[in-house]
Amino acid sequence: MDLDAHFESFAARDWQTADEGTVRVALVGLGEFSRDHVLPALAGEAEGTGSDAPTDRTSFCDITALVSGSPEKAESVADRYDVGRTLSYEEFEAGEGVDSFDAVYVAGPNALHLDHARTAARLGKHVLCEKPIETSAERAREMVRACEDAGVTLMVGYRPQVEPAMRRLRDLIRDGVLGDPVAFHGWFTGHILDGAGPDQWRLDPDLAGGGALMDVGVYPLNAVRFLLDADPVAAQATTSAPDAEFEGVDEHVAFQLEFPEGATASCTASYRAQADDRLRIVGTEGQAALNPAFDSEIRPELTLEVGDERVAYTGPYVNEVAEEFDYFAHCILTDARPDPDGRDSVADMEAVEAIYESAETGRRVEIGDAET
Amino acid sequence: MDLDAHFESFAARDWQTADEGTVRVALVGLGEFSRDHVLPALAGEAEGTGSDAPTDRTSFCDITALVSGSPEKAESVADRYDVGRTLSYEEFEAGEGVDSFDAVYVAGPNALHLDHARTAARLGKHVLCEKPIETSAERAREMVRACEDAGVTLMVGYRPQVEPAMRRLRDLIRDGVLGDPVAFHGWFTGHILDGAGPDQWRLDPDLAGGGALMDVGVYPLNAVRFLLDADPVAAQATTSAPDAEFEGVDEHVAFQLEFPEGATASCTASYRAQADDRLRIVGTEGQAALNPAFDSEIRPELTLEVGDERVAYTGPYVNEVAEEFDYFAHCILTDARPDPDGRDSVADMEAVEAIYESAETGRRVEIGDAET
Repeated sequence: MDLDAHFESFAARDWQTADEGTVRVALVGLGEFSRDHVLPALAGEAEGTGSDAPTDRTSFCDITALVSGSPEKAESVADRYDVGRTLSYEEFEAGEGVDSFDAVYVAGPNALHLDHARTAARLGKHVLCEKPIETSAERAREMVRACEDAGVTLMVGYRPQVEPAMRRLRDLIRDGVLGDPVAFHGWFTGHILDGAGPDQWRLDPDLAGGGALMDVGVYPLNAVRFLLDADPVAAQATTSAPDAEFEGVDEHVAFQLEFPEGATASCTASYRAQADDRLRIVGTEGQAALNPAFDSEIRPELTLEVGDERVAYTGPYVNEVAEEFDYFAHCILTDARPDPDGRDSVADMEAVEAIYESAETGRRVEIGDAET
Repeated sequence: MDLDAHFESFAARDWQTADEGTVRVALVGLGEFSRDHVLPALAGEAEGTGSDAPTDRTSFCDITALVSGSPEKAESVADRYDVGRTLSYEEFEAGEGVDSFDAVYVAGPNALHLDHARTAARLGKHVLCEKPIETSAERAREMVRACEDAGVTLMVGYRPQVEPAMRRLRDLIRDGVLGDPVAFHGWFTGHILDGAGPDQWRLDPDLAGGGALMDVGVYPLNAVRFLLDADPVAAQATTSAPDAEFEGVDEHVAFQLEFPEGATASCTASYRAQADDRLRIVGTEGQAALNPAFDSEIRPELTLEVGDERVAYTGPYVNEVAEEFDYFAHCILTDARPDPDGRDSVADMEAVEAIYESAETGRRVEIGDAET
């Protein structure tokens, strides 16, 4: 087998069918990720901002409005990135400046995503919602309904799905290069307290809907569903929070998923462990690994072993945020349904709820079909 | 932190306190592992045997007897390796040639280990029993009792415990270099049908006591217990056997263990998947990986990351089989208790039974203290 053939056209945008068009985006929420990653990728970065994020830019997006609870922050960011419009949340909800944008990017606390998406849908604006979609499967379904009823596109921000290495790995699995998938291992760990400290919404169960599973564990969960193109049928899990700062949310989680054809996924996530994120999948005929798997700033190495052949490939750097926004905009411009769409995230949330239920009850919890 | 300091004296035998002495060993069972790995390591290999196993030798062992159900095989192997005595199983049980050996190595089907170990104990001979110790925790306890009552040493053949890279990793964890252990991932997969085909005792549930978990899944299970110096308190698991050749045993297994201080182990094993065996452990301050983790013929690479520091180290090649037999003999010569002793394997078997029970019932199964 010529494994190298799978690495030709590695970073080609297999989804791109159009070359022109622009979608005007309003950022709803100016948290760290929006400021340090989204704005540089969408608006280009002025000098001296202190960010070392890559400056690769989107082709199909312009940021034309900023929505924030802090007028000072909004003005400062608007100046820095030359964004024409700033809005308070009240102004956004009242429809002010509605003609200045075509779509919104919803960031910020998970529990507020639904309200912002509903506002956007009511205003006829497309929605790119940060992961996880919301705090529960039911609220995720409500968001899907709101967007479908309004006829607007809903995409959820699983960056890794547009990362070329992840897409090539999915191609390899689809093509049967690994044989039948047998076992997936994936993890995402880090030190969440090192950034914003203990006083942040991610540690508030009402605003976050959960802990390490909701914030970082959803990455291997979503990735294995993406790679296998299948939804898990059952979950077994355990969570723990030995440290006081994490009271009320899972500091650590380990979960195991079963897929319809018999493959399993063994995943872990942590808010307080050495930073790392990788995945490995072994099949009957071969195996593949991605390192890092979910980090947005390092070029992932894709390692592939089939029988006695082994190749390791690091593709060109791709700014995943720019890629994600361009994919979203391209779906709008071509009237295509995005792949990590709202229903995809409903399935994630159903698995998340089964994982939490299993951790609480000690039972294997079956995962139902999405009801939407 | 000077991580390199942990790699000095990498392969030193931290267990060795004596320089002299010889233990005369009888091999009970002349299967593939005995012929291709044990005999070359203990007796040196004549030319033209077709084996490419390393020829590193034991320092403290001599093979002085061979026990086999096939006189022809026994004679042929005895000639090849210049072993003075061959015995049938009946002669072994009757105590013939009892003065020609001090200890026995018990290989062959798991369900026969107890009988052979009982015979050895009755004859006053020390026992090195291949892993897994037997087919159930109860039979493992019986073996422990038989050896303790007879005052003979019982060790179980978990080679990786004498592999320097595994021992150094345990030192690192003990010294707190990784902080508090958080999550372990380990797996051992391969194609068992490629060797002996479908007609082999490992696929007979009565002789093997189980499938992939019993034969290869016990490696990550035993390794995480060794590395954390702790026994798991609960198991969650799923097994499957989609292919007809594996009816009655687990072709694939995924299991998750909880440890008293909150660490988890996420493990998979398979009889029909691309060959691979690795482990990774992440802690609050660092992480480490071993690749391969359980294979006996490839020098493992130990990768260590603590904060922003990273080192990868491949130690000198050590013949694990020779190392294992020397450690066993050294324990006998110095009257020391071996580390993978019978009680250690009882704990493995209790975890194995909890894993199978969880896979069958879908419940989290608590693992009790060893009763011996």
